[in-house]
Amino acid sequence: MKVRVIVTLKNGVLDPQGRAIHHALEGLGFEGVNDVRAGRVIELDVADSTSDAALDEMCAKLLANMVIENYRIEKAA
Amino acid sequence: MKVRVIVTLKNGVLDPQGRAIHHALEGLGFEGVNDVRAGRVIELDVADSTSDAALDEMCAKLLANMVIENYRIEKAA
Amino acid sequence: MKVRVIVTLKNGVLDPQGRAIHHALEGLGFEGVNDVRAGRVIELDVADSTSDAALDEMCAKLLANMVIENYRIEKAA
Amino acid sequence: MKVRVIVTLKNGVLDPQGRAIHHALEGLGFEGVNDVRAGRVIELDVADSTSDAALDEMCAKLLANMVIENYRIEKAA
Repeated sequence: MKVRVIVTLKNGVLDPQGRAIHHALEGLGFEGVNDVRAGRVIELDVADSTSDAALDEMCAKLLANMVIENYRIEKAA
Repeated sequence: MKVRVIVTLKNGVLDPQGRAIHHALEGLGFEGVNDVRAGRVIELDVADSTSDAALDEMCAKLLANMVIENYRIEKAA
Repeated sequence: MKVRVIVTLKNGVLDPQGRAIHHALEGLGFEGVNDVRAGRVIELDVADSTSDAALDEMCAKLLANMVIENYRIEKAA
Repeated sequence: MKVRVIVTLKNGVLDPQGRAIHHALEGLGFEGVNDVRAGRVIELDVADSTSDAALDEMCAKLLANMVIENYRIEKAA
């Protein structure tokens, strides 16, 4: 089973990497960019029997810092 | 328009961060993890008029190193 | 002038990437690893006339999130 | 023993994150920035008995992708 975990900074937490990309896109002449946020993605190939609870536990214990980051788990159709 | 760019290393390119996560998940006792790849995600809020060509250009010029990385563009429904 | 900026999470801020590396090193059989912290490094080549104040401003405005991160500026001898 | 590992892309490997920071610094009005490279830093606290060979092995096996990245090991004085 292919699972993707998206880890991004919570709203309100300043994001220096997103800010750098935002400025750079404007500097390159791209118009209409309102906001940019940068984060990490972790793509997992796990046994089909892996439970949602186990995936949540992976995120909480290892993949994300839940004080400053959000995570979302997406499963391939 | 919300757009998400997922940047991951191409297949065959060694991924130290994914490898570290893989080992760590096993060390924490999670079973059935076959593979882990780590990457970056860039979440953009852009004008609805932004063309696909402009998004591709952002990726090729700034967001990804196309020699070693793949990118995927995903638009929110 | 070569300048290096080291950006790390402040003490007390959970560091998922450092934790993953720590577990992985142990899983690979490396002994005596007490702690691991992960961060970013930005290597700058700037005009010799660049002031320390300008470097600090680059860090505060763009390179680091001073709420959760520390930065250190190191100049090559 | 405090050890720092600096991992950066090899010369010649395009560095999207460094490029974004470079453009952003210019966009913010900072002058005299010739080049920017982005990388990772891993700060280790290891037993004093840890050999240089063990540190090199940590880098080669886990911390860096030696095809596209360089690493430097720095020990605190």
